[in-house]
Amino acid sequence: MPTPFHTTRLVEFSDTDMAGIMHFSAYFRYMEAAEHELLRSIGLSVYTEIDGAAISFPRVAASCQFKAPVRCEDVLEIDIAVRRVGTKSVTYGFAFSHEGREVAGGEMTSVCCRVEHGRPPVSMPIPDTFAEKLRRLAAD
Amino acid sequence: MPTPFHTTRLVEFSDTDMAGIMHFSAYFRYMEAAEHELLRSIGLSVYTEIDGAAISFPRVAASCQFKAPVRCEDVLEIDIAVRRVGTKSVTYGFAFSHEGREVAGGEMTSVCCRVEHGRPPVSMPIPDTFAEKLRRLAAD
Amino acid sequence: MPTPFHTTRLVEFSDTDMAGIMHFSAYFRYMEAAEHELLRSIGLSVYTEIDGAAISFPRVAASCQFKAPVRCEDVLEIDIAVRRVGTKSVTYGFAFSHEGREVAGGEMTSVCCRVEHGRPPVSMPIPDTFAEKLRRLAAD
Amino acid sequence: MPTPFHTTRLVEFSDTDMAGIMHFSAYFRYMEAAEHELLRSIGLSVYTEIDGAAISFPRVAASCQFKAPVRCEDVLEIDIAVRRVGTKSVTYGFAFSHEGREVAGGEMTSVCCRVEHGRPPVSMPIPDTFAEKLRRLAAD
Repeated sequence: MPTPFHTTRLVEFSDTDMAGIMHFSAYFRYMEAAEHELLRSIGLSVYTEIDGAAISFPRVAASCQFKAPVRCEDVLEIDIAVRRVGTKSVTYGFAFSHEGREVAGGEMTSVCCRVEHGRPPVSMPIPDTFAEKLRRLAAD
Repeated sequence: MPTPFHTTRLVEFSDTDMAGIMHFSAYFRYMEAAEHELLRSIGLSVYTEIDGAAISFPRVAASCQFKAPVRCEDVLEIDIAVRRVGTKSVTYGFAFSHEGREVAGGEMTSVCCRVEHGRPPVSMPIPDTFAEKLRRLAAD
Repeated sequence: MPTPFHTTRLVEFSDTDMAGIMHFSAYFRYMEAAEHELLRSIGLSVYTEIDGAAISFPRVAASCQFKAPVRCEDVLEIDIAVRRVGTKSVTYGFAFSHEGREVAGGEMTSVCCRVEHGRPPVSMPIPDTFAEKLRRLAAD
Repeated sequence: MPTPFHTTRLVEFSDTDMAGIMHFSAYFRYMEAAEHELLRSIGLSVYTEIDGAAISFPRVAASCQFKAPVRCEDVLEIDIAVRRVGTKSVTYGFAFSHEGREVAGGEMTSVCCRVEHGRPPVSMPIPDTFAEKLRRLAAD
């Protein structure tokens, strides 16, 4: 299945655990890093200043299914699909594979927020320039 | 809602991120640590030697919904329910709250596996002594 | 050797690596968490608002020697000594032991800084109330 | 200063903390990952099977000085020097810079060990093929 964005990542020693495999929590950090890489690829950033406010995308939901273990120095192939672009939120789907075999699949929903340090993030509509670019990826 | 197991955890500085709040991936490590604490409370361990084999419980699925941000040095209340005990797997539900307000809810399914280092974990029926104790918690 | 502050910490599964032992980087997070616990014990915090400014203590140096491996669910005993209180900095010494045997020893130097989000931290003299309490611990 | 090995790394969101900068503990994971990349560049690995035994390089010492803060999405330049190759240990020096300015410097000493799961690592002389390649880097 072709997806709008693809990246790779090497499993590091510090992400393994005593069972000899990558710890499941690393998948969530890898998903977020891949999402940010996708955003950079369309000229956006995790933290963007627009009209004098910092805009960021905290998660409201994250899930992952783990199908086969991966090990230190395995290279993971990561495919991201933009599943849904709402007024305020984006949902991404992630497929992780290793040597042609799917090892995990995940989903994350991020909400566009105005962020002021020391205060709770406040959700807001995704600015048009962001939304257009994300919708174009969703259509791919 | 009363649950069979309750614990608390202080949010540490190293678990926060530049948005000033706890990073979402920490919830997954907190869920696993709470699950292990529950296992210890009934005399079990993450890694148990039974009949000469190491038995562990790798996850096959994990999900979390994030409802409100939490901050450094907040004390999280964590309630765990044993939602389902199958032949080979256990599903736990987690409710996180802070000062009486629910901040996140999650679920994890762990599969009983025979673990030999350097080989993929092999699923197996949960040994009777484990299963009985978990079912007793599920009934609570 | 008696030290002014003592705490304990259980080694968690997610802090182990494929060598079957706790990953060395966890010691640095444990040292920081223990330092913050020491600060709380004398009524201070990682982040304190004094005279309208946020004061924090970023590290300028950290080191650790690893003497013996520790494993999942080992309980570490952590002793902290306040080695030096300068005008702007504090140096802490850490001794980690397990079942009476020293397993690691570390040192960290933190610098008192005024922190404004989005700008580099600016070092400043430790406020008198902090400095006095820290010097009292150093004298112990 | 020219060094025998150079790599780069992007600071990820999950490695930042509430002070808005990269958490100091990330430097230690970055040092280890860079060391492993250096090993791969000369045909070695973190975990190598030689004559039927697993050989790995646990750390006995690690230190870092932090000179200037770095932020999310900063690209770090990492230079590694092989400072000393002993009979059983290797000491690496690390220089981290961002946009031409040194931001941190560290050192790590790793000891060659035979690793059997569930037992403490046992130090051993670095195998000749490893030692020769590391000495060649040290001479650069």
